[in-house]
Amino acid sequence: MSWDAAPFVYDDPDKAHRILYEALMTVHLHEGDLPGDLDLGPVVAVDSETMGLRHNRDDLCVVQLSSGDGDAHVVRLKRPAYDCPNLKRVLADGNVLKLFHFGRFDIAMFENHLGVETRPVYCTKIASKLARTYTDRHGLKDVVRELAGVELSKAQQSSDWGAEVLSPEQLTYAASDVLHLHVVRDRLDTMLAREGRTELAQACFDFLPVRARLDLQGWEDADIFAHT
Amino acid sequence: MSWDAAPFVYDDPDKAHRILYEALMTVHLHEGDLPGDLDLGPVVAVDSETMGLRHNRDDLCVVQLSSGDGDAHVVRLKRPAYDCPNLKRVLADGNVLKLFHFGRFDIAMFENHLGVETRPVYCTKIASKLARTYTDRHGLKDVVRELAGVELSKAQQSSDWGAEVLSPEQLTYAASDVLHLHVVRDRLDTMLAREGRTELAQACFDFLPVRARLDLQGWEDADIFAHT
Amino acid sequence: MSWDAAPFVYDDPDKAHRILYEALMTVHLHEGDLPGDLDLGPVVAVDSETMGLRHNRDDLCVVQLSSGDGDAHVVRLKRPAYDCPNLKRVLADGNVLKLFHFGRFDIAMFENHLGVETRPVYCTKIASKLARTYTDRHGLKDVVRELAGVELSKAQQSSDWGAEVLSPEQLTYAASDVLHLHVVRDRLDTMLAREGRTELAQACFDFLPVRARLDLQGWEDADIFAHT
Amino acid sequence: MSWDAAPFVYDDPDKAHRILYEALMTVHLHEGDLPGDLDLGPVVAVDSETMGLRHNRDDLCVVQLSSGDGDAHVVRLKRPAYDCPNLKRVLADGNVLKLFHFGRFDIAMFENHLGVETRPVYCTKIASKLARTYTDRHGLKDVVRELAGVELSKAQQSSDWGAEVLSPEQLTYAASDVLHLHVVRDRLDTMLAREGRTELAQACFDFLPVRARLDLQGWEDADIFAHT
Amino acid sequence: MSWDAAPFVYDDPDKAHRILYEALMTVHLHEGDLPGDLDLGPVVAVDSETMGLRHNRDDLCVVQLSSGDGDAHVVRLKRPAYDCPNLKRVLADGNVLKLFHFGRFDIAMFENHLGVETRPVYCTKIASKLARTYTDRHGLKDVVRELAGVELSKAQQSSDWGAEVLSPEQLTYAASDVLHLHVVRDRLDTMLAREGRTELAQACFDFLPVRARLDLQGWEDADIFAHT
Amino acid sequence: MSWDAAPFVYDDPDKAHRILYEALMTVHLHEGDLPGDLDLGPVVAVDSETMGLRHNRDDLCVVQLSSGDGDAHVVRLKRPAYDCPNLKRVLADGNVLKLFHFGRFDIAMFENHLGVETRPVYCTKIASKLARTYTDRHGLKDVVRELAGVELSKAQQSSDWGAEVLSPEQLTYAASDVLHLHVVRDRLDTMLAREGRTELAQACFDFLPVRARLDLQGWEDADIFAHT
Amino acid sequence: MSWDAAPFVYDDPDKAHRILYEALMTVHLHEGDLPGDLDLGPVVAVDSETMGLRHNRDDLCVVQLSSGDGDAHVVRLKRPAYDCPNLKRVLADGNVLKLFHFGRFDIAMFENHLGVETRPVYCTKIASKLARTYTDRHGLKDVVRELAGVELSKAQQSSDWGAEVLSPEQLTYAASDVLHLHVVRDRLDTMLAREGRTELAQACFDFLPVRARLDLQGWEDADIFAHT
Amino acid sequence: MSWDAAPFVYDDPDKAHRILYEALMTVHLHEGDLPGDLDLGPVVAVDSETMGLRHNRDDLCVVQLSSGDGDAHVVRLKRPAYDCPNLKRVLADGNVLKLFHFGRFDIAMFENHLGVETRPVYCTKIASKLARTYTDRHGLKDVVRELAGVELSKAQQSSDWGAEVLSPEQLTYAASDVLHLHVVRDRLDTMLAREGRTELAQACFDFLPVRARLDLQGWEDADIFAHT
Repeated sequence: MSWDAAPFVYDDPDKAHRILYEALMTVHLHEGDLPGDLDLGPVVAVDSETMGLRHNRDDLCVVQLSSGDGDAHVVRLKRPAYDCPNLKRVLADGNVLKLFHFGRFDIAMFENHLGVETRPVYCTKIASKLARTYTDRHGLKDVVRELAGVELSKAQQSSDWGAEVLSPEQLTYAASDVLHLHVVRDRLDTMLAREGRTELAQACFDFLPVRARLDLQGWEDADIFAHT
Repeated sequence: MSWDAAPFVYDDPDKAHRILYEALMTVHLHEGDLPGDLDLGPVVAVDSETMGLRHNRDDLCVVQLSSGDGDAHVVRLKRPAYDCPNLKRVLADGNVLKLFHFGRFDIAMFENHLGVETRPVYCTKIASKLARTYTDRHGLKDVVRELAGVELSKAQQSSDWGAEVLSPEQLTYAASDVLHLHVVRDRLDTMLAREGRTELAQACFDFLPVRARLDLQGWEDADIFAHT
Repeated sequence: MSWDAAPFVYDDPDKAHRILYEALMTVHLHEGDLPGDLDLGPVVAVDSETMGLRHNRDDLCVVQLSSGDGDAHVVRLKRPAYDCPNLKRVLADGNVLKLFHFGRFDIAMFENHLGVETRPVYCTKIASKLARTYTDRHGLKDVVRELAGVELSKAQQSSDWGAEVLSPEQLTYAASDVLHLHVVRDRLDTMLAREGRTELAQACFDFLPVRARLDLQGWEDADIFAHT
Repeated sequence: MSWDAAPFVYDDPDKAHRILYEALMTVHLHEGDLPGDLDLGPVVAVDSETMGLRHNRDDLCVVQLSSGDGDAHVVRLKRPAYDCPNLKRVLADGNVLKLFHFGRFDIAMFENHLGVETRPVYCTKIASKLARTYTDRHGLKDVVRELAGVELSKAQQSSDWGAEVLSPEQLTYAASDVLHLHVVRDRLDTMLAREGRTELAQACFDFLPVRARLDLQGWEDADIFAHT
Repeated sequence: MSWDAAPFVYDDPDKAHRILYEALMTVHLHEGDLPGDLDLGPVVAVDSETMGLRHNRDDLCVVQLSSGDGDAHVVRLKRPAYDCPNLKRVLADGNVLKLFHFGRFDIAMFENHLGVETRPVYCTKIASKLARTYTDRHGLKDVVRELAGVELSKAQQSSDWGAEVLSPEQLTYAASDVLHLHVVRDRLDTMLAREGRTELAQACFDFLPVRARLDLQGWEDADIFAHT
Repeated sequence: MSWDAAPFVYDDPDKAHRILYEALMTVHLHEGDLPGDLDLGPVVAVDSETMGLRHNRDDLCVVQLSSGDGDAHVVRLKRPAYDCPNLKRVLADGNVLKLFHFGRFDIAMFENHLGVETRPVYCTKIASKLARTYTDRHGLKDVVRELAGVELSKAQQSSDWGAEVLSPEQLTYAASDVLHLHVVRDRLDTMLAREGRTELAQACFDFLPVRARLDLQGWEDADIFAHT
Repeated sequence: MSWDAAPFVYDDPDKAHRILYEALMTVHLHEGDLPGDLDLGPVVAVDSETMGLRHNRDDLCVVQLSSGDGDAHVVRLKRPAYDCPNLKRVLADGNVLKLFHFGRFDIAMFENHLGVETRPVYCTKIASKLARTYTDRHGLKDVVRELAGVELSKAQQSSDWGAEVLSPEQLTYAASDVLHLHVVRDRLDTMLAREGRTELAQACFDFLPVRARLDLQGWEDADIFAHT
Repeated sequence: MSWDAAPFVYDDPDKAHRILYEALMTVHLHEGDLPGDLDLGPVVAVDSETMGLRHNRDDLCVVQLSSGDGDAHVVRLKRPAYDCPNLKRVLADGNVLKLFHFGRFDIAMFENHLGVETRPVYCTKIASKLARTYTDRHGLKDVVRELAGVELSKAQQSSDWGAEVLSPEQLTYAASDVLHLHVVRDRLDTMLAREGRTELAQACFDFLPVRARLDLQGWEDADIFAHT
């Protein structure tokens, strides 16, 4: 099932001189797995929706992906089997860079429920912390507003992603979280290079799967590098 | 200047069945740099003393090293020149594993004042957090007491390491912090292997120099991987 | 005295595709006690209004009940006599399930002022905590909005329920708190079953009257099961 | 392996008029499981030692039991198989009351690692909270000091219970935690009866296995009955 | 100088059935002192405006009074002389009850700057705490909204009351704070009587001047009756 | 039953120049009530022991009194009848000043369990707060140490005062709390007069029974005079 | 490049009697340095924009100045060379008073990146704390609203000031921060004089460059004058 | 009245190699004022004792001075007249440097009660914060222990300094606080010079009287230089 959603509303009147992002996004809903013949290219934006934030309790429900072309692929997983070889192949593919915003959570979820180690990865939250030193607001909504000029709705963020049928509002919300990560990454990479922090960011991305594994194994509340 | 210090007092009467660590340690004081002909072997315990905990304010004063044979080499550095090529060579030597307890601080100090990247490293504090899950006490004093059976004195921990002449109490304290790290590492490696966490610990050690660089570059108060 | 209140306004424009709940509710006001011949069926939603939240100080003023048919029965109690045998009979009836939202408070109030033990009970707040793991918002307003699609007004929540004459706003507010609990319970039961937590929820409901008694007897600030 | 430990030292000089508890305890160490022919009677004190406090990370290592006759049986479990049918039978035996101090933790550990539901249970910490209203100190050490007149050492509380060989200090510590629970329960039962709280305590004990299950299933940080 | 201000706007649309308080208030501005021939009757509402909240630093600037007839008398004091015998006479008059909202502050200010002990007094904040147990909102704005049905503006609360010329907004704000205290007191007295707390409230009012003196003498941060 | 206890040990070696308080105290234990013919004079030190600190849960168990002559009268009350007319007469006698340390608690207990209003009263804790401005330590132990030169033991403070038989340690502890209040009051009165705060202290003492009543009626957690 | 910005919108309808500040401001953008022939007079308002708030990490990007005539000069600096002799001359000129709001930050930035000590200075935040004792809101937005009657927008406060091209919104925001400081200072000086605090304020301004140097040298988190 | 006190006990066994400070101090007690003919030289250590820490409530009682020769002059002031011209002359003498530890408090007390501005001053607490960056312990006891090798007793710190007769313990305590400040200053000056912070420290000392005046005038809780 695929459909075209309304264009994003550009809601900040102070930024009227910018060019509005007018293209329609297309949302593709896949039940159980990605299609086997779908090629999302070398850089894929990824996000997921779950029953909650606790790894040892809350199931993985939905995974969203986008190649950065304005389309979003929303995969509704069948739990507890999680039989989705195509999705797992993309996540584990060493030649495909996965773009996340706060990937720590998703990567741990994927390892826990899908049994795959997600590598290589890029995290726009970490990149934002290293590049956007002029603010302490690094949520997806803030980052996308400033760097992509798009206002995301978060109304469906906490909803029942384990329901038998997902509502259009849920699907649109899920899709929107991956649509802009490519643009955001481009902007952040420019800033990181300008400030001389590209290498530092890459080293953090490389450690991210380890950090996710620490979460899964019981150190989710600890900063393992902290003094106390 | 070298001398023999008194044997460590084993102060816990409840542990009377353990074998007391009786050997005398020998402390070697070096002014300015390590001797050029000193070979400390492939695994060197390292610690340092500074004017304080702030990288951008407090100078590095003393570096202590031990090969694990009961001798400690205490190097009193000449600031602000820090002309100590032999010491720097050991720290940067990719074939010499440097053992620290909370190496994050020392590594950042070495990068900041000596201009060297310290690699490869092992941190007994991180190892303790991963292995000794039954406690939240991972200070050097706690770890050495339990794993090496030795009671360290911390009386000189906060003293004037920038003084023209260091007191015998300061030198003994400085030396004692590196004497037992080899034993502690052996015990922790056994526990990590038993619990299946060797690989996880290694991945954390590998990231430690990056974490130290983040400290130096202005993220010392932030857990870069945290959600907020 | 009975009257028809206005239909609930469905105030979330983003959910325009849902079917609006159009039926009028009818509010029945009873002075002192329920009518003796009123049969509310095997599952009764119950709520109460008081002079405040302190059991040993604040009187019980109003009890509201609904059989789930859209009608609400609001009983204005005569304090301090609380001579209301019909109401007490319903609360203590072992064959009538009482639905509450945060029943812990009401059950304690009923034991304290009416001298009845309310059993069996169902608490939509506890059920929500066990089923809606994707959120930490389990207030009645939040639960009813998501699960019944109705926006409750809380404007009269803190008002003088001990007044000689209750205002229409107070009566409407009181009635609205019991009208939707049947629908909410249905939704939560479906979710609990889906996640395999039906038995766990039932065990918590069974303990609820004990928890209320602990409140009355002086452990209102303590989690009796906590470590500290 | 069994041996006699030293009598407990009664260390409070202010209580010199009390009768010192002089009997020697005998500690029996069992590898892997309880002996099949050991009958511990209808009321068994139980405690356990683990690799830490996190259910989803830390293994169960040791279970201690006592029939209240001054002997302690310390079972060192073989993980991860946990093949100990005799121990499991005692824990699950509906005709044997298990005495714990803060049983919530042990019961969850047993369900998680041994796969048994421990019932019926009695918890001296809960009983102490309900009876000893004159204090907020309900740790085992405090309760045993006041009600059994014995001073427990807690020096080995945080030690490596997963070690291949447990030290005599560890075994003595483990044994001491179950030796006095029968006496403590007697004293607490007298006080609960005097204050009219026997029934209330029993209702709390009955809920304890549910509370432990909530811990295991992901609500370990929540008071499920709390308002927020 | 006197003038008529606009009628209060009744801004809560939900309360449309209530009767709007339409009468105009008249504000009388007095420079330096009350007129000598003004008789405000046996019950006078009083409030004051100052340079801040610290008794030992911030001057008293304005005192407002009302007899409850809809008129407000605003006295702009000349500091540091505070030569205002008529005002002082009213405050100290044992036959005139002074109505305050949080009188503790004003009474201390009057003692500090005017040298008078204000007695007898009534405090609508204390009365509200004792009567309106169903809320924890006892600010003047909250109390006046609920009990007098009037919405007060607080926009000028923090403004420069020591200015040479007070703005119309400041004068209107100052006046509005005393206009409704008589009505509020009537409502609160009814509630206190209904709940049997009239005597308790009176005892608190009687202590209020002592509490104000404790503030002045250096115990402003302490609850003198607290355990710690 | 009466007996002589050991003289108080003066345990501060730094104060060796002070004269040791050598007189023996005599403790009189009365079951149920004071003797009818006991005259304790116009100023009586009073303290009590309870099952805990919650008025609505914890029973009053023991009341201690002293006329200041070195004797202590310990009354063990029979609950729940509390049939003790002689004790109640002393407490309610308007011609007998009752000395307390933190009398707020005892006065509320007496009103709650004995049904008497205790007046007039003097509180050494309040007096200490007003006179000893050079410290924030106003516990009985601190006040008695400094002003009476006696070191009180607090070891029995939290013990089972509801037990059938009180231990000698409990009785000695209970007695010691009233033995020194007369001396302490004399010292504090001298200091209050020197600092000009006698009247302020008296006004606080007069309010104390009201403050106790507020505790009983449900405002135990609130400072009724606070802004928030 | 210079242009005229829109007049400031006066957005507070309650202040309709004040005269609207209608004059257009003119913004002059200078790349790299101030023009050599620009004379800003004896009192210059100064503000700056940076990559963040950490002196040892975040670069200085923009400095804004105004002589108080309604024009703003925005200097976009070339980092890391910071070759701007004209700007440095103004900052270091002992005959030019620099007006800041929270100058502590800017002065430290100038010393760190430009190598100049900025003297003499005036800080409207410190002056506001000393004069406006009736409020705790001393942000630039609050101060300018009350004292200049102008509503500043803070929307661009956290934006990428290191970008190659600054947006018109950024330039307008930067300019607006210096336009009103002369008016604000006049108002504050009047209030300081009225309250007798002119000398105290001047002494604080004189210390401000020292306070900035303490920030740079590592005491940025400490109040050097605090007890702890 | 003068007498010789016992030599200071050197209580740290670890420092046995240091030379014990054996000289006897002589304490001179002066009633009301310093003798007119006493010349304490160009650098005088000063401390004071008060009725407490609140400037607007607690009286100044005792001032201690020492020229650094081992003698201490303790002046017991007559309040409230504070007629002590000789003492005031020393404090205000621009040619006599006054050494304090946390002089902020004493300077404010002197201005408040004696009406003198104390200048010039040196504060060993501020100097310690700037020099001893390796610790956060800057209390007099800590500083004197490390830098003078003397262990001060703090037992009389909180005692009744307003008493008619001061005890020998109080006098000895008061005297000891000024005996070692000259030595401490010498050590700190050496460290400040070594670290290049002499000028910074002097600028802080110069501001100290202003900081004290801010305390007196109502900003005692505020860091006037803080952002918030």
